Amino acid sequence: MHFMNALAERWQRADSLLCVGLDPDPARLPAHLHERPDAILAFCRDIVDATADAVCCFKPQIAYFAAARAEDQLEDLIRHIHERHPGIPVILDAKRGDIGSTAAQYAREAFRRYGADAVTVNPYMGRDSIEPYLEYADRGVILLCRTSNAGGSDLQFLDVGGEKLYERVARLAADEWNASGNLGLVVGATFPDEIARVRQITGDMPLLVPGIGAQGGDIAAVLAAGRSRDGTGLIINSSRAILYAGDGEDFAAAARFAAQATRTAINRCR
Amino acid sequence: MHFMNALAERWQRADSLLCVGLDPDPARLPAHLHERPDAILAFCRDIVDATADAVCCFKPQIAYFAAARAEDQLEDLIRHIHERHPGIPVILDAKRGDIGSTAAQYAREAFRRYGADAVTVNPYMGRDSIEPYLEYADRGVILLCRTSNAGGSDLQFLDVGGEKLYERVARLAADEWNASGNLGLVVGATFPDEIARVRQITGDMPLLVPGIGAQGGDIAAVLAAGRSRDGTGLIINSSRAILYAGDGEDFAAAARFAAQATRTAINRCR
Repeated sequence: MHFMNALAERWQRADSLLCVGLDPDPARLPAHLHERPDAILAFCRDIVDATADAVCCFKPQIAYFAAARAEDQLEDLIRHIHERHPGIPVILDAKRGDIGSTAAQYAREAFRRYGADAVTVNPYMGRDSIEPYLEYADRGVILLCRTSNAGGSDLQFLDVGGEKLYERVARLAADEWNASGNLGLVVGATFPDEIARVRQITGDMPLLVPGIGAQGGDIAAVLAAGRSRDGTGLIINSSRAILYAGDGEDFAAAARFAAQATRTAINRCR
Repeated sequence: MHFMNALAERWQRADSLLCVGLDPDPARLPAHLHERPDAILAFCRDIVDATADAVCCFKPQIAYFAAARAEDQLEDLIRHIHERHPGIPVILDAKRGDIGSTAAQYAREAFRRYGADAVTVNPYMGRDSIEPYLEYADRGVILLCRTSNAGGSDLQFLDVGGEKLYERVARLAADEWNASGNLGLVVGATFPDEIARVRQITGDMPLLVPGIGAQGGDIAAVLAAGRSRDGTGLIINSSRAILYAGDGEDFAAAARFAAQATRTAINRCR
C-alpha cells in the first residue's frame, strides 16, 4: 500500500498522531539486557509490541544501529514490525543527501534492504538529489525543513529574498518536487510559528514533528499550528521520553504507559 | 596523526592532489569478480593497491556498501588501506547531518567503527549538528558547501543577504565553526568561480573537489581557482573515471594508468 494511504488509515484506525522514535542508545538500555548480543533488537521489539496500538508510525534512527554495528538487528526489527503489526508504516530516519547516482544507492538501502515505508532526506543538494527516492512511488520521502535543534536557525532561518530558507524548502516541496504525491516535511515541535507557516504553504502535506518530550516542544501549540483540516496531517515523534520512561525489567510497560498518555494528550488538543 | 598534518605530508610525499573515490557500483564490477561473496572488497582493494602511490587520499562512499549489505567489507577495506598504505588518509563520504545526540552516534560510526580519518557532513542543521564530529580533534570534518550536481543551485545559490548560501556556509566554517582547525569544505569542480570564491573566504582550508572525470569538471580551471598559496589545498576526487577505466581482468592496471595520468594532468596545472 502507498505510504500516504497507510498513514491516513493508521491515523484513523489507531486514532493516533503519535510516532515512537526508536533511538536505542546502548548506554541507556535496561541493565538486564546488557549481556545479550541482540540487546538493541530485544529492547526495540519489546517497545514496539508494547506501544503498537497507540501509534501511527514507528521511526527507527539508523545512526544508533550503525554506530553499534547492528544493521542486521535493524533489518530484523523492521521485519518484525511489518509481520507482527501489519499496517503500521516504518519511517527510516537516515537524513541522507547525495548526488543522483549515490542517492540511488541510499534509496536502495532504505527501501529494498530495510523495507522502510518512508525515509527522511536532507534537501541541501537540491532536486536531483531527491529524485531517486521519488522513483519509489509507493514510499514516502520526508525532507528536512525546519529542524528542532538550536543550530537549525544557522541556515534554515536565513532570509532568501522575502522568505526564510525553510519556507523556500517547503514551497519547493509543495509546488515543484511533489509530482508523485509522496513528500512530507520535518518541522520541529520547538517552533510552532514555523509549523503554522509550513502548514499554510503545503496544504495537507504530512509533517513529521520531532521535539516533544525530551526536547521540550509544547503539544497544544504543535496541534494548533500544524493539524490539517481533518485534524490529522501530523506525525508527532517522541523517542527518549517513551523509550526510557522506565529503566528496569518493566521498561516496556512504562513505555506503554508513556505512549498512551502522550497519545491522549495529543488527542485532547485535536 | 592529525588528519590535516597527514594530508599535508601526503600532498608533499606523493606529489599528488588526487583522491580516488571508492564507489563500487555492483552493476559495473568486472565480470570475473561477480561470483565472489567479497567482490566489492576484492575490487576496491585491487584499485587501492594499484593507485596508492598516485594519491593523497582515498574516499570510500558508504552508500555503495550499505546498499549491498557490505558494511563488513567497508571495515576490511579501510583497515587494509591503513595497514598496507600507512600515511594515506581515508575520507569516509557519508554526508551525515543530524541533531547532537544522533550526530554523536554518526561520529562514532565514522571514526570508531570504521576508523576513518575524516568524514563528510551536511551543514543544513547548523552548528550543534557538527560539534560532535569536531570533538574528535585529530579527525577531519568536511562540510558540503557548493556541490557539483545540477540541483546544488536550488538552495546553495540562493541570495541570503549580499552573499549566496554556499558563501555563508564557507564563512561560518572559516570564521565560527573551525575552533579545532579540522574543517574542510566540499566544492564541486563544475563551478570554478565558486571554488575561487570559497578559496578567498577560507584562506588555506582544504577543499574536497568532486566532479572531474565523469561529471565533466575542468582540471586547469579547478587548479587556477582553488590551489592554496603553496600550490596544494585541494583534494581533487575522481571516482568512476578511474574505477571503471577498464572492465576486464586488467581493471587494476587500467585504473593505475588513469590515476597516474590524472595526477600528471593535475600537476601540470599547479
